[in-house]
Amino acid sequence: MQRLQLEGQAGDVALDPPVVPLDLQLRAPALDDLRADATRLVGALESEGVNEPHLCLPVLAEAPARLRAQGWSVRVAVHRGQARPEVVAILPIQTALFGLAIDVGTTKLAAYLVDLSTGQTVARAGAMNPQIAFGEDVVSRISYANTAPAAERVLHDRLIEGLNRLVDELCAQAGIERASIVDAVAVGNTATQHLLAGLPVRQLGEAPYVAAASEPLNLRAAEVGLQLAAGATLYTPPNIAGYVGADHVAMLLASGLGDTDRTVLALDIGTNTEVSLAHGGQLWSCSTASGPAFEGAHIHDGMRAAPGAVERVGRVDGAFLVYTIGDVPPVGICGSGILDAVAQGLEAGIIDSRGALSKNHPLVRRTGHGPAWVLVPAVRTGHGRDVLITRSDVHEIQLAKGAIRAGTELLLAAAGIQAEAVDDVVVAGAFGTYLDLGSAIRVGMLPSLPKERFRQVGNAAGRGAQHLLVSRERRTMAGDLARRVQYLELTTHGEFTNRFVAALSF
Amino acid sequence: MQRLQLEGQAGDVALDPPVVPLDLQLRAPALDDLRADATRLVGALESEGVNEPHLCLPVLAEAPARLRAQGWSVRVAVHRGQARPEVVAILPIQTALFGLAIDVGTTKLAAYLVDLSTGQTVARAGAMNPQIAFGEDVVSRISYANTAPAAERVLHDRLIEGLNRLVDELCAQAGIERASIVDAVAVGNTATQHLLAGLPVRQLGEAPYVAAASEPLNLRAAEVGLQLAAGATLYTPPNIAGYVGADHVAMLLASGLGDTDRTVLALDIGTNTEVSLAHGGQLWSCSTASGPAFEGAHIHDGMRAAPGAVERVGRVDGAFLVYTIGDVPPVGICGSGILDAVAQGLEAGIIDSRGALSKNHPLVRRTGHGPAWVLVPAVRTGHGRDVLITRSDVHEIQLAKGAIRAGTELLLAAAGIQAEAVDDVVVAGAFGTYLDLGSAIRVGMLPSLPKERFRQVGNAAGRGAQHLLVSRERRTMAGDLARRVQYLELTTHGEFTNRFVAALSF
Repeated sequence: MQRLQLEGQAGDVALDPPVVPLDLQLRAPALDDLRADATRLVGALESEGVNEPHLCLPVLAEAPARLRAQGWSVRVAVHRGQARPEVVAILPIQTALFGLAIDVGTTKLAAYLVDLSTGQTVARAGAMNPQIAFGEDVVSRISYANTAPAAERVLHDRLIEGLNRLVDELCAQAGIERASIVDAVAVGNTATQHLLAGLPVRQLGEAPYVAAASEPLNLRAAEVGLQLAAGATLYTPPNIAGYVGADHVAMLLASGLGDTDRTVLALDIGTNTEVSLAHGGQLWSCSTASGPAFEGAHIHDGMRAAPGAVERVGRVDGAFLVYTIGDVPPVGICGSGILDAVAQGLEAGIIDSRGALSKNHPLVRRTGHGPAWVLVPAVRTGHGRDVLITRSDVHEIQLAKGAIRAGTELLLAAAGIQAEAVDDVVVAGAFGTYLDLGSAIRVGMLPSLPKERFRQVGNAAGRGAQHLLVSRERRTMAGDLARRVQYLELTTHGEFTNRFVAALSF
Repeated sequence: MQRLQLEGQAGDVALDPPVVPLDLQLRAPALDDLRADATRLVGALESEGVNEPHLCLPVLAEAPARLRAQGWSVRVAVHRGQARPEVVAILPIQTALFGLAIDVGTTKLAAYLVDLSTGQTVARAGAMNPQIAFGEDVVSRISYANTAPAAERVLHDRLIEGLNRLVDELCAQAGIERASIVDAVAVGNTATQHLLAGLPVRQLGEAPYVAAASEPLNLRAAEVGLQLAAGATLYTPPNIAGYVGADHVAMLLASGLGDTDRTVLALDIGTNTEVSLAHGGQLWSCSTASGPAFEGAHIHDGMRAAPGAVERVGRVDGAFLVYTIGDVPPVGICGSGILDAVAQGLEAGIIDSRGALSKNHPLVRRTGHGPAWVLVPAVRTGHGRDVLITRSDVHEIQLAKGAIRAGTELLLAAAGIQAEAVDDVVVAGAFGTYLDLGSAIRVGMLPSLPKERFRQVGNAAGRGAQHLLVSRERRTMAGDLARRVQYLELTTHGEFTNRFVAALSF
């Protein structure tokens, strides 16, 4: 078996996609051979060693025209990972087969087109998640879904429309037809994955927050409305709990937590932060409500990571330096910038260990929002107003880092180890990639460990999805991993509140 | 296993439906048991001995609301006949489960609601096949389907709409919900079955007339648009060839040809007449284009079997007697009437062995349509015009009976036997039930055998469908039967034309 170095953190992945091509030369129907098209196709497959292949209805429906248009010489795409091998597409001979990897983020959609014969990603496309119109976070979308039976359907439909547009874009980039996309993998948090599949989310919004389904789903892409090859399959990895989703599982796999004997802490930082710990061959996971501060929400001058956002704050010889995205005058501050600002403010004594601003500091002014630190005065900003850090902004960061820290500590306690025992810390996700580790450690969000133990792995969930497209072993590992995880529900955990309160201070 | 005497011709049928109920008491989710709904359901099923049950997407989607609405005490309907047992519905505890049997005729739809716990048919409904608007026979519907890609869809959609209306009617009759109909069986000729499933029919209209699929289809009812329980299954029996459909298979099964060691000839007489012969444990089948004469089409005064149609013609003391449906003055003649008329005309010397009318007979008059036999003079009809039998009408009957006879003879030749060796003749279908056997033998449509060897079995296809709902054994037999049949394609058979021409004379 070919082993490939795919882009990922978990070493190489064996190229062994569930869906493989098979070129067939069929006999045309004749007076002495009146077998039905399906029987003819099944016969040809069985003589190639594919036993009891199943033809789903959409493939049966396209078979007569496709077989005749191709003069009975066709390439079929066969899914080998089901109870019975399944024909998912009938294509012109020698057609290259592609897979679609989808990372459905709460905020952003990312889609990747993978050549299944090489494992290489040949096109990428991204867009905002259209569900944003119905709530910025998962909890508000669940609330919206519960307003009316049709609302859940709207969330599903908008998402699928958005994904179908990305598929168009990928096909145009790569110059291929949708019909040659024969398999898909979608990862997302549990609620998003439910909405993608058309499963209800109401029970995810009510204690004890259980999923409709947590095992991997093996669907037909057409069942959820994705327009790919007629019988194209759609796989979603298992989720671990209502708030630890398949995207986290994909991230853990791509980061090597599926089969490590090291002690690894892995965090996916976002509005909800999923934290997992591998130790002694065991795995623990939890989810913490870290809030949207790192996406710039609930922050006085907060904004998304876009041109004009302060993304770094440094201090040289006592003077604060700000760096903006696009190197233009600042108009606000994004997640990594606010984290840096708080860390630097602590160092400079502008912020104290309880999170209060020092009213005597020359950069702190009284404003309509209480005392605020003028990070960038109006004269140097792009919009002619001060860029401020308020007491309330600091409080948001305290809540976020306190939650992440408390979750981390409870996982360490469950494993019976101290933070120092952690060999590797994996920090995933867009914010996790841009944050300054020093700042994250200084504010107490991440454990204080030598920097060489940290890995910032970017969109590991997306990479995990790409791996799952081309590796049957990875799909097996995903199931194993989810079954092995010991999940800690923090909202009702006896120790959580104490730990959280203790972790609020800097 | 309970054995039931179901209404049918094949003795008793073991009551062993593929879909069975199972009452489950689940634990509600709690902080110490956060399993997903699907995992919880699968766990409960496995502890009842149902191994590796599969939950399809529509069932997963309804599970959270149904489980909670029922307080976690539910009846599930489990389909045992698939590769893995499959949950097809989640219902209130103790809900009675029903099956839907559908006979999709070219002209008429018949639907039966069967109580799966008793095997009894509890409601029946019928309607015209809405596809009639697109052609009276299968060949014209195939032509219509080929006019545009959307036309095939229209034929499918109209049919499904018609069937969904019948389901409404059945539910109202029986006072049940659609959600308790957990399985369906549909029989029809090959083209109709293709249109029902959404399979293309173009290749059925072009030599060598092969089916897209001939094996049994195990679909989800929702896949084709039938609104039953969320995951309800739809089974269609195998077909034998492009013009010997699943309805004929169902008829053969209901008539005992699936496991007989007798020599049995079975005919399903219609626009196409399917003929099968069982002999020495072997089976042969063919289809003959017998035309629509027996449905009253292409006959000068032909009409469907409706009030005022002459359905019987007798002769007492040399005088012709006609009997009409509804016992009202005649306004036309239906299939069984025209068959009787030709037989009596032959006896009376009005029609000669070549089919010509005797111009010298007092009842034969010169008309605008050539010489015609005045079967009922205008003074005695309901519409004040003569009811005539024309030379052309006799010719239509000659073509029909010639085709059926030639097909029968070729089957006998294939089996190497003479007609006298036939133990039983089964005549099925609406026309087959009403025809007078003496007339059919007199015109030469049926072999000249003692009357006690004949059985007129009515809508055996519909009964076969009902049996298939409640018997896994019958489904196995259906597959076996279709595989065992030796199909004779008559349109290209070297001997057919000679036999047909020879069989035209009376």
